[in-house]
Amino acid sequence: MRQVDSQGEHAVNEKERRELLGAVAEAVAVIEGCREFAALIPEVRTNIVYAARDAQGPEDVAAVDGRITVVNGMPRAAGRPRLGASSHMARAIVEARKLGATERAGINFANDPHLAEWLREYCRSKDWVFGHIDRGQEPAEMQREDVPSMPWKVRTMMSSTGGRLPKVGYETGAVGKEPVSALFGDDAVIVAQEMCEIARQYKRPRRSW
Amino acid sequence: MRQVDSQGEHAVNEKERRELLGAVAEAVAVIEGCREFAALIPEVRTNIVYAARDAQGPEDVAAVDGRITVVNGMPRAAGRPRLGASSHMARAIVEARKLGATERAGINFANDPHLAEWLREYCRSKDWVFGHIDRGQEPAEMQREDVPSMPWKVRTMMSSTGGRLPKVGYETGAVGKEPVSALFGDDAVIVAQEMCEIARQYKRPRRSW
Amino acid sequence: MRQVDSQGEHAVNEKERRELLGAVAEAVAVIEGCREFAALIPEVRTNIVYAARDAQGPEDVAAVDGRITVVNGMPRAAGRPRLGASSHMARAIVEARKLGATERAGINFANDPHLAEWLREYCRSKDWVFGHIDRGQEPAEMQREDVPSMPWKVRTMMSSTGGRLPKVGYETGAVGKEPVSALFGDDAVIVAQEMCEIARQYKRPRRSW
Amino acid sequence: MRQVDSQGEHAVNEKERRELLGAVAEAVAVIEGCREFAALIPEVRTNIVYAARDAQGPEDVAAVDGRITVVNGMPRAAGRPRLGASSHMARAIVEARKLGATERAGINFANDPHLAEWLREYCRSKDWVFGHIDRGQEPAEMQREDVPSMPWKVRTMMSSTGGRLPKVGYETGAVGKEPVSALFGDDAVIVAQEMCEIARQYKRPRRSW
Repeated sequence: MRQVDSQGEHAVNEKERRELLGAVAEAVAVIEGCREFAALIPEVRTNIVYAARDAQGPEDVAAVDGRITVVNGMPRAAGRPRLGASSHMARAIVEARKLGATERAGINFANDPHLAEWLREYCRSKDWVFGHIDRGQEPAEMQREDVPSMPWKVRTMMSSTGGRLPKVGYETGAVGKEPVSALFGDDAVIVAQEMCEIARQYKRPRRSW
Repeated sequence: MRQVDSQGEHAVNEKERRELLGAVAEAVAVIEGCREFAALIPEVRTNIVYAARDAQGPEDVAAVDGRITVVNGMPRAAGRPRLGASSHMARAIVEARKLGATERAGINFANDPHLAEWLREYCRSKDWVFGHIDRGQEPAEMQREDVPSMPWKVRTMMSSTGGRLPKVGYETGAVGKEPVSALFGDDAVIVAQEMCEIARQYKRPRRSW
Repeated sequence: MRQVDSQGEHAVNEKERRELLGAVAEAVAVIEGCREFAALIPEVRTNIVYAARDAQGPEDVAAVDGRITVVNGMPRAAGRPRLGASSHMARAIVEARKLGATERAGINFANDPHLAEWLREYCRSKDWVFGHIDRGQEPAEMQREDVPSMPWKVRTMMSSTGGRLPKVGYETGAVGKEPVSALFGDDAVIVAQEMCEIARQYKRPRRSW
Repeated sequence: MRQVDSQGEHAVNEKERRELLGAVAEAVAVIEGCREFAALIPEVRTNIVYAARDAQGPEDVAAVDGRITVVNGMPRAAGRPRLGASSHMARAIVEARKLGATERAGINFANDPHLAEWLREYCRSKDWVFGHIDRGQEPAEMQREDVPSMPWKVRTMMSSTGGRLPKVGYETGAVGKEPVSALFGDDAVIVAQEMCEIARQYKRPRRSW
């Protein structure tokens, strides 16, 4: 049941809000301690999100204010955990849950063809569902700035995996959109640990320039 | 019951740890939003602590890593909420609870004679217990570096108020020790809100230099 | 003349390095004080760069470690000014200088069709050179990951403006690349001030979602 | 000659301001890279200051906004280099220069009897002037809150060393004042390097509690 207090109607009560913020704080500690993850932070930077059980929108999802960037070669959260701090990753989780997914946590990271291939193998070895979408297939009307593309992306991703949210998914880049990957799960701290395990296992090929 | 996991015995299980960290994250948001509190941050800086229900020592108390300082005229947490991030304020709460206090949260702030007098009146208006200790009365053996003075300080503070932890207390400075005040309560977020209310009400007299 | 010290050959001596870092520190103070600029920070985040007089590569260019993101609704530098902290914007300046440009400072910011149109008018009113490149025209071989596209981008941008680096330029997005704008000038602090003036003048139309 | 611009009269022109800020930025990089220095950061936290050649007061001295604290076991600057960011250490340098000292940089750090004895020996081995003041000797009128004690402290310190500012000095604690040490020199970056060398050499005895 949604709560109503002096700040209006909320899907998140005080107790759950603290659990969400505390979990993101712990997840950030995991990520900030993993030097190898710095190499997987995309240009758009990383966020880790954790949705309330009854999340209706980004304001019901805890994330890192200012995202996670790289300082001094290490992952560094720019700000504090805050509800409403993520738009993109938060909407991905909220949309997926509307379509029946039960996952509440997610983290985005880099993507390129070499990594995508490696992730496919990694997921196979873990028996994890792996998914991807080709944003080149995105309907033209999605590309107007005033139409949110997230519902299409999540629907397409999930329909490619039999209706489930994949454990790891990626999207190819589109015009104006960096290709990114994401990892999903039930719990923000466990997602952070799984992410760091990937970062430590993956050896990115060295660029020639 | 204390938990035993791969990292050893803990008074704090995963669920409670998240509640503590989340509450401190929320408390920091309250404090960082209160410009007036910047004027009450002491030289030793402020910490806000929140103890587990069965806290045995600082490692069972959530606090701000690096304390809260002043940047650009506003309060700013230097690091993230973390268990074990406070020594001084954490030991104050743990000692008080050993003596029967039920409070789990505290925040330290500045002290000077003008503020102390104002706090006494403020507590009277709120019907809050007000306490203080004179560190000049501290037994000589307490002043050796290898003897912790916190047990004496908390015992003395509480015995001056009939065995209760005061809502607001202060200590006069001793040799090598800045005089500080502290505010205690059951909940870290409420303590932060009460602290900011004090900061907004108090008008510090301007220094002549 | 390039310097050789215990850390190898450098285009930047100690004195110039301090001037560069100090200028970026001042530029960051300007940017962090401009709330309106938060709305112009792109997904890939902003950096402000300031190149040494004889800069040969990114390691001779001062910038903000971790870029500038948005925390609590305000621009916030993630880390400290550091030589070598920027790759993208630093290479833009270095390439432009190889082609005869004298500018040493630049800052990147958001782009969308509405803003691009507004910038064109703004530049006209200021008598500033305005340039743009269409990344859709980028030769196919540029799009391989191992071929740097910056030389092509800078050459194309400058050839569209008679060989000069424009005061303000933008690129349309390409596959995998967010469309961004940039502002260039002789001095990092003045560039920051000009950027904030733009941010204060520009009223972004509200999104419908 | 003092400069007059739109912000009033300044002892620091734009060029010198950048040099000061850039030097403090470099000094912070040195300090943040030295794990051992974390153990020497006092309760009141550390600042590193660098005064303009014609500094008249704290507003002409560059320092770290919010001081340097300990996050995650490492020294961490809370904010950016800024003129006017230090009061205490800045006034120490300004006072010393009024009495003929030529040093422009200083950093404060912890003090206790064991460290003080070690520093005395260290200075002897380096042929550095070592000084100290006993704040117990401070005239009673200095202890009123409205009388600045810095002039007395600096005068006493310098008179104990034949009129020179010592390379390393410390003060014993007074009522309400933590005992601290300070290291002085001509240049902020070199002072930071000397400070880290001390931190790496010094092995603090382990506390028994």
